[in-house]
Amino acid sequence: MKKLVKLNFFNTLSKKMVFGFILLIILGTILLSLPIATVHQQGTAFIDVVFTAASATCITGLTVVNTAAHWSIFGQLVILGMAEIGALGYMTFAVLLFNIIRRHRSMGLSTQLLVKESLNLENLSDTKSVMKYVIGLSAFFQIGGVFLLAWDFVPRFGWKRGLYVSVYHSVMSFCNAGFDVFGNSLMAFQNDSYVLIVTIILIVGGGLGFLVWRDLLLYHERKRLSLNSKLTLTTTGTLFVLGFVILLVTEGNLSSLAGKMSWVNRTVNTLFLSVTPRTAGIITLPTDSLHSGSVFLIMILMFVGGTPGSTAGGIKTTTFGVLMLQSIAQLRGREDVEFSKRRFSQANISRALLLVFLASIVITLATLVLTQTEKIPQGYGLEYIVFEVLSAFGTVGLSLGLTPHLTVIGKVIIMILMFVGRVGIFTSLYALSKRQTRVSRLRYPEENILIG
Amino acid sequence: MKKLVKLNFFNTLSKKMVFGFILLIILGTILLSLPIATVHQQGTAFIDVVFTAASATCITGLTVVNTAAHWSIFGQLVILGMAEIGALGYMTFAVLLFNIIRRHRSMGLSTQLLVKESLNLENLSDTKSVMKYVIGLSAFFQIGGVFLLAWDFVPRFGWKRGLYVSVYHSVMSFCNAGFDVFGNSLMAFQNDSYVLIVTIILIVGGGLGFLVWRDLLLYHERKRLSLNSKLTLTTTGTLFVLGFVILLVTEGNLSSLAGKMSWVNRTVNTLFLSVTPRTAGIITLPTDSLHSGSVFLIMILMFVGGTPGSTAGGIKTTTFGVLMLQSIAQLRGREDVEFSKRRFSQANISRALLLVFLASIVITLATLVLTQTEKIPQGYGLEYIVFEVLSAFGTVGLSLGLTPHLTVIGKVIIMILMFVGRVGIFTSLYALSKRQTRVSRLRYPEENILIG
Ligand SMILES: [K+]
Ligand SMILES: [K+]
Repeated sequence: MKKLVKLNFFNTLSKKMVFGFILLIILGTILLSLPIATVHQQGTAFIDVVFTAASATCITGLTVVNTAAHWSIFGQLVILGMAEIGALGYMTFAVLLFNIIRRHRSMGLSTQLLVKESLNLENLSDTKSVMKYVIGLSAFFQIGGVFLLAWDFVPRFGWKRGLYVSVYHSVMSFCNAGFDVFGNSLMAFQNDSYVLIVTIILIVGGGLGFLVWRDLLLYHERKRLSLNSKLTLTTTGTLFVLGFVILLVTEGNLSSLAGKMSWVNRTVNTLFLSVTPRTAGIITLPTDSLHSGSVFLIMILMFVGGTPGSTAGGIKTTTFGVLMLQSIAQLRGREDVEFSKRRFSQANISRALLLVFLASIVITLATLVLTQTEKIPQGYGLEYIVFEVLSAFGTVGLSLGLTPHLTVIGKVIIMILMFVGRVGIFTSLYALSKRQTRVSRLRYPEENILIG
Repeated sequence: MKKLVKLNFFNTLSKKMVFGFILLIILGTILLSLPIATVHQQGTAFIDVVFTAASATCITGLTVVNTAAHWSIFGQLVILGMAEIGALGYMTFAVLLFNIIRRHRSMGLSTQLLVKESLNLENLSDTKSVMKYVIGLSAFFQIGGVFLLAWDFVPRFGWKRGLYVSVYHSVMSFCNAGFDVFGNSLMAFQNDSYVLIVTIILIVGGGLGFLVWRDLLLYHERKRLSLNSKLTLTTTGTLFVLGFVILLVTEGNLSSLAGKMSWVNRTVNTLFLSVTPRTAGIITLPTDSLHSGSVFLIMILMFVGGTPGSTAGGIKTTTFGVLMLQSIAQLRGREDVEFSKRRFSQANISRALLLVFLASIVITLATLVLTQTEKIPQGYGLEYIVFEVLSAFGTVGLSLGLTPHLTVIGKVIIMILMFVGRVGIFTSLYALSKRQTRVSRLRYPEENILIG
């Protein structure tokens, strides 16, 4: 029943990914340390440079200094470059990793064919072609985003500044990176529903990830979606609708802004608020003005995060979806966990459970340490810290205000959280370990999904 | 491999338990509604009477009115009686339920023998003998507690009042019920380490539960403990030590009280603080004076709770232990989850996962509703509500101060949480459902533990 497989490729690729990210952070740190990276040419405290480089590479968007006010155009472009490389590099690695797991798990030819068919990976056997596809998809969204945004930003800011912010905002939105050169995220565009909706499309586009998009684009040929895509889309859709409806209630559809904003614009802002925790980190409203119910909901959404293999972080929609389906199956007295005429492997379910468990431990430990090192200001409670921890681990980039006030220990912990959250707990562990991994043989007609 | 078994007895017993608790709450409500139940003979608002009856029956100890100031001796004795019946009744039901699951799951004679041996249940086949054992054990602890406490309380309060508070405090501590007739829990006894240590023994004694005690008492004969007892003791011990050590750090061993209290007494108070969230609800320090790190830790401990089949609530140490072991096994690349030369059944693990998942959903929904209905006072954050929800669901009885200020909807929700937390999510669902349950056949040498 069992076969011992050395996942050499897997380990090697995990190590490559971890070291690739570390190299990128080091490179970014060097570039951002240059005096010309800052507006006043005076340079930046070392810990803040490392923090910014880590936040950009891990496409989180938590900032200890204001991106618009502190960094020069050169510095801002370095951040943009790191976020883009971080996002595309991660997506490429994710596809390759997934590909390798598939190849190693498929023992017979028929299984191989089944697996390939189910993921449409037949053309994705080498790094170059995967990169080609990933870059193609990203370019499509980002260039499209620039055109759509420029239509609003160029008349508003003039050609030069307008194009610059269009490019910056398009890339950062698609990469779910959360940095902005407006100085105050999208708060100045609360009333500009056009910009908000374009941003939502870019965020969701990046957050769905390459594998799901490819599956969707090939649907007219194949007439079926992989289990991974179906589960991702179902969970994303469900959480999206649930989050939006709950936020409509908890925020009273922003009725306090009724004097300043039309009903439509308030609804778009609420919609934006339900999208940004997964895991864009761009805001249109001050986070500390939110109702405690909204803060609680946003924390849950940040923990769940987005699609595996996308620019989003968190425990991922598939993990959440599998555990929810497992619980429903249990409640109905079923042993097999089924979805869309497929059954999940026990290995998938165990992996999902392990991931949630490890994530909970990481989050708990980080919170405990931060309660010791950080000061909670008057008027805030424990959520001031938990929110920041979930935001960093989910690479979201939202904050109740703690980031600029972090102590050095606090900054180091948040950096570690961003890094582990970005490359994934499993990848971090694989990269550290030399252990052989036992992989269960697949049984028909099981189909695997991505966890982590 | 599978066999369909109608768990008629199980369903019947679950229904009996649920309706037994409801009857007890109704009876308590009637008695506490009498004017003679209150000090001023003016009666109590209906919702507060029901809340108190539910809190006592579910041995939680959350109070909307001060037990010492509001209720007469008669009212206080009604509360005491409900807590005692609630605690002993629950323990009896729990043993019977466990017994029935065992009998239904054992298919062959050899399995039956193995299972019986492993749980030492051979003399526990009928309700009467189980009740006899449960009452015997409880009487031993509670009467012992009265003697030990009277040694301090009688000189302090005189014979009449001294004996009364000894009985009251002994019963409430063993039952993990959290009510007190001192007016301010044990805060007046901060410096009385003797009373605190006796209380800790009673709390831990009640919190370990009947099955573990029986196993421990029969150890000299059998030279082995059941997997359930081993796992319970290991998890309880680990959480106890971890909680104590972390609280020593977060509270700085109460160094702010150094002027008023000796080092030994401060350590005993910290020890008490690590015991009370599982799930006694008695306090020696004002909860709102605690450090945010301590509050966070206490919330986690309240969520985990105590031993299944004891007076404690929460998701239970076995659930937490199994999931932790499952995660460790996964990390080590093992498929089987082993502990102490036994392997957990997949059914156990799935059940544990389901329980945590359902508990998380219940807690999330309750928190969301309470953020809408309740007002968080200045200086507190979201934990003001989450703490109360976890305390009610874990039948702990600690509060950051919300309980007396709850709205009517808030009171109803907290009551439901206490009830579901007490009888268990599974029992609540079984009592509601008519569905047949599929039970997996046991394989040797698996051994089952209690989840929920
Ligand atoms: K982000
Ligand atoms: K209690």
